[in-house]
Amino acid sequence: MQSRQNQPDESKREFLQSSLILAAISFGYLVLDGCSSLSYSTIAKEQTMNTEGNERFTRGWDKLKEIDGEAGEKVIESLKNIAPDLGRYTIEYPFGDIYSRQGLDLKSREIATVAALTSMGNAAPQLKVHINAALNVGCTPEEIVEIIIQMSVYAGFPAALNAASAAKIVFVERGIINV
Amino acid sequence: MQSRQNQPDESKREFLQSSLILAAISFGYLVLDGCSSLSYSTIAKEQTMNTEGNERFTRGWDKLKEIDGEAGEKVIESLKNIAPDLGRYTIEYPFGDIYSRQGLDLKSREIATVAALTSMGNAAPQLKVHINAALNVGCTPEEIVEIIIQMSVYAGFPAALNAASAAKIVFVERGIINV
Amino acid sequence: MQSRQNQPDESKREFLQSSLILAAISFGYLVLDGCSSLSYSTIAKEQTMNTEGNERFTRGWDKLKEIDGEAGEKVIESLKNIAPDLGRYTIEYPFGDIYSRQGLDLKSREIATVAALTSMGNAAPQLKVHINAALNVGCTPEEIVEIIIQMSVYAGFPAALNAASAAKIVFVERGIINV
Amino acid sequence: MQSRQNQPDESKREFLQSSLILAAISFGYLVLDGCSSLSYSTIAKEQTMNTEGNERFTRGWDKLKEIDGEAGEKVIESLKNIAPDLGRYTIEYPFGDIYSRQGLDLKSREIATVAALTSMGNAAPQLKVHINAALNVGCTPEEIVEIIIQMSVYAGFPAALNAASAAKIVFVERGIINV
Amino acid sequence: MQSRQNQPDESKREFLQSSLILAAISFGYLVLDGCSSLSYSTIAKEQTMNTEGNERFTRGWDKLKEIDGEAGEKVIESLKNIAPDLGRYTIEYPFGDIYSRQGLDLKSREIATVAALTSMGNAAPQLKVHINAALNVGCTPEEIVEIIIQMSVYAGFPAALNAASAAKIVFVERGIINV
Amino acid sequence: MQSRQNQPDESKREFLQSSLILAAISFGYLVLDGCSSLSYSTIAKEQTMNTEGNERFTRGWDKLKEIDGEAGEKVIESLKNIAPDLGRYTIEYPFGDIYSRQGLDLKSREIATVAALTSMGNAAPQLKVHINAALNVGCTPEEIVEIIIQMSVYAGFPAALNAASAAKIVFVERGIINV
Repeated sequence: MQSRQNQPDESKREFLQSSLILAAISFGYLVLDGCSSLSYSTIAKEQTMNTEGNERFTRGWDKLKEIDGEAGEKVIESLKNIAPDLGRYTIEYPFGDIYSRQGLDLKSREIATVAALTSMGNAAPQLKVHINAALNVGCTPEEIVEIIIQMSVYAGFPAALNAASAAKIVFVERGIINV
Repeated sequence: MQSRQNQPDESKREFLQSSLILAAISFGYLVLDGCSSLSYSTIAKEQTMNTEGNERFTRGWDKLKEIDGEAGEKVIESLKNIAPDLGRYTIEYPFGDIYSRQGLDLKSREIATVAALTSMGNAAPQLKVHINAALNVGCTPEEIVEIIIQMSVYAGFPAALNAASAAKIVFVERGIINV
Repeated sequence: MQSRQNQPDESKREFLQSSLILAAISFGYLVLDGCSSLSYSTIAKEQTMNTEGNERFTRGWDKLKEIDGEAGEKVIESLKNIAPDLGRYTIEYPFGDIYSRQGLDLKSREIATVAALTSMGNAAPQLKVHINAALNVGCTPEEIVEIIIQMSVYAGFPAALNAASAAKIVFVERGIINV
Repeated sequence: MQSRQNQPDESKREFLQSSLILAAISFGYLVLDGCSSLSYSTIAKEQTMNTEGNERFTRGWDKLKEIDGEAGEKVIESLKNIAPDLGRYTIEYPFGDIYSRQGLDLKSREIATVAALTSMGNAAPQLKVHINAALNVGCTPEEIVEIIIQMSVYAGFPAALNAASAAKIVFVERGIINV
Repeated sequence: MQSRQNQPDESKREFLQSSLILAAISFGYLVLDGCSSLSYSTIAKEQTMNTEGNERFTRGWDKLKEIDGEAGEKVIESLKNIAPDLGRYTIEYPFGDIYSRQGLDLKSREIATVAALTSMGNAAPQLKVHINAALNVGCTPEEIVEIIIQMSVYAGFPAALNAASAAKIVFVERGIINV
Repeated sequence: MQSRQNQPDESKREFLQSSLILAAISFGYLVLDGCSSLSYSTIAKEQTMNTEGNERFTRGWDKLKEIDGEAGEKVIESLKNIAPDLGRYTIEYPFGDIYSRQGLDLKSREIATVAALTSMGNAAPQLKVHINAALNVGCTPEEIVEIIIQMSVYAGFPAALNAASAAKIVFVERGIINV
């Protein structure tokens, strides 16, 4: 996780720039693609706005990288040509507003999030991101497994079993367990 | 979408016929397959009934093709050898009864459906069908993305993010955006 | 609905002020109430911050009043002594950010929200607020009922039946139907 | 339960008639009530249609009374002035189409429905109707409690506990247990 | 909360005894009530078994009282004449097995549970029990409110708003805030 | 299904042994893998405990094999290196406690479970296991399809359609239908 902390701060600036460049580039591609592409491309360009000088965005982006690491960046990246403003809101509200709040430490916040996503049972990709995030902010693998086991009580065994499968994938990816 | 409108009307008749022929054909296959196959095949044959001269079915089938296009037909097709009556009900009730009602235009109906499927978060295949359907009945790509972004408020960011992924797949398939 | 538009703009200023006054007043009450009350009161006071000069809050508060009318204000009011920042976020993100966006008209946005809340089936108070909101921004009673009926397809009959009960309460309150 | 079986068959005819009379009566009331009431009343009148000579409706109504008894009739009754067509569909599709199917006995169907409504956890009124229905079609109180206990495995203990509360209310109402 | 800790240990023994006495007493009442009552009463009696000398039950009962206090006991009490075995399982599995595990402290466990119940949004009574429980095991009111606010990100604003209402009721009951 | 009944009883003993051996083996692997792997491996070893001489585990394991067959064993197997205690609880509570209860026959229990998992719509792997289980304990393919069709009423058409897809996969795997 430390290596993530040290990621050059340029990645943020790069994102901010690429958000602006994106439209130009994709415009180039899409202009050949006909009318509907062009219009959606233009709209997508207009969505990616207001990030320079936006304190919530800057704070959120730093927090996102601290907590979610690369996985979080990939989520935002994947939204660029479909719903860049959803990416911006994901940075601003959850990370710029909520995870930046005082009153609850980051480890407790990730315990809450892993519990919620396990229980809701319909957000497998996000659960994996937050099992990673929980490890990033100091949860042990054992604690994550305890949360998941506990959710069998509140959301039933299928929810817990599926979350255990998600944890297995993350733990293998991070070398915590072998396959 | 226009091309879908022009699909030869035979596809409906073909479906009605194939529903009857299906049993015969699959009977031929399955009779070699042993006892349990035979019995389920017979049952499946009995399920596919009452579609000729059934006004709700006819109206629903036309409406399904108008709204969902090929994607809708594939859903019905895929049910043929497992639960053909569920296919028939899917035509009769949602399309023959509900989408054929006055009182709300088709575009508004698809806005409602995309919102619902995004929020429920456990129906990815149907969400893709209805993102296509929303485009078919006049929603712009931008409007669909707006609905999805808005659902972050009511169903949370994971639901919105997963719906954005679904929209991305549909938009790429239709050439609205590039990969 | 117009009458709501004309509500003196003081109600916003009043809210902003009362947010600050609240702590003082409740501090007065709660100081007699012992340690834990005091500490939570202090925290609640700290939560209600940053609303003066906050463009998203101002825009959101106006939008909230436009769409939800008094019902929306009551929601925010009810949060004052428990989670004022959740009230502030409710104004800033859904109303200041999302409902203030271009790209989808308010009527379509409320169609989406009524559909979502009907389908999720676990947010009866919010469903009533948004049935009111839908009427406020131009949906007819008939259109709202159509959305609810349609949700029987996607979320099942119980969800639709419970939403019809919610609509009945709202329609009676507004004199659209008799008891 | 037997007493329900013997309910005069007039109740169905009465419903069919009252559906037509309803509009006239409520029209009389509502005409004094101003424009929006009038229009919704007219719409509601138009909704209640096509029940005479509708085989699915007739079959469904008989099935509804057989299974749900008075509780089912009250559900339909309560929809009359808000969404009469949702009432009609509730009779036609679930009862006229589904519960009238061969292939699964009514007791097994109610076991499935009690399990589903317990697990979904957001349909308390319908759960009570179907705990009654399960008793009506031959489930014992013990069997119903077994289903509810079993759902703790799949949907968690809160869902099971809330369903047990619903069963307690129904069992007290029917004199199966004392308060 | 301290007063709960000091509750005479008899309450457990009392429960164990009353579980046995219950059948006799309720049998006396119910025998006058007719056949079905009698049979369900007998079954309920048979359900309440195997608690003496059951280590998981004893450990769970102590843990339930430690965590949930009176609210937990009331849940079990309310199940006595409807599903006593569900009460026994609630003691044995969640409290005797899960909350008695090493590997995650009780405060973190309640953070997880409050997050889960807030997000699922269909378990209001249990959410109130566990907001109380969270306070009992060392969460501050502020921390609970932080969890609830955070859930707006994952489960949407309605879920968070409804949980804030539940917290308000609990905080008023405990004198943490005034009405 | 009979062949499953005859599986040598050694498979249970083998599991009990391999649970103990597992730690040793994986310890060997993981010791090279660094500190965090080692610690989680040790914890996982500690989790797999108390199964010898545990009556609930033994009864549950037999019941699991009777009902779910190989699919159930695979679920437990897959939990070994991530959450072995969740595997143990899955055997002890659902199978050792619940499915071993009197009061409802196994076929009715599987009808309830297929209905619940279809309705919840977020547990596809478990639904497939229990469609298999339902067939194992005497449900016909037709009855399973009837349950799934019926769930369109309570949980909507998407839930029913997705369950039909799951059933199709299971039926093809078992040779009940052809592809």
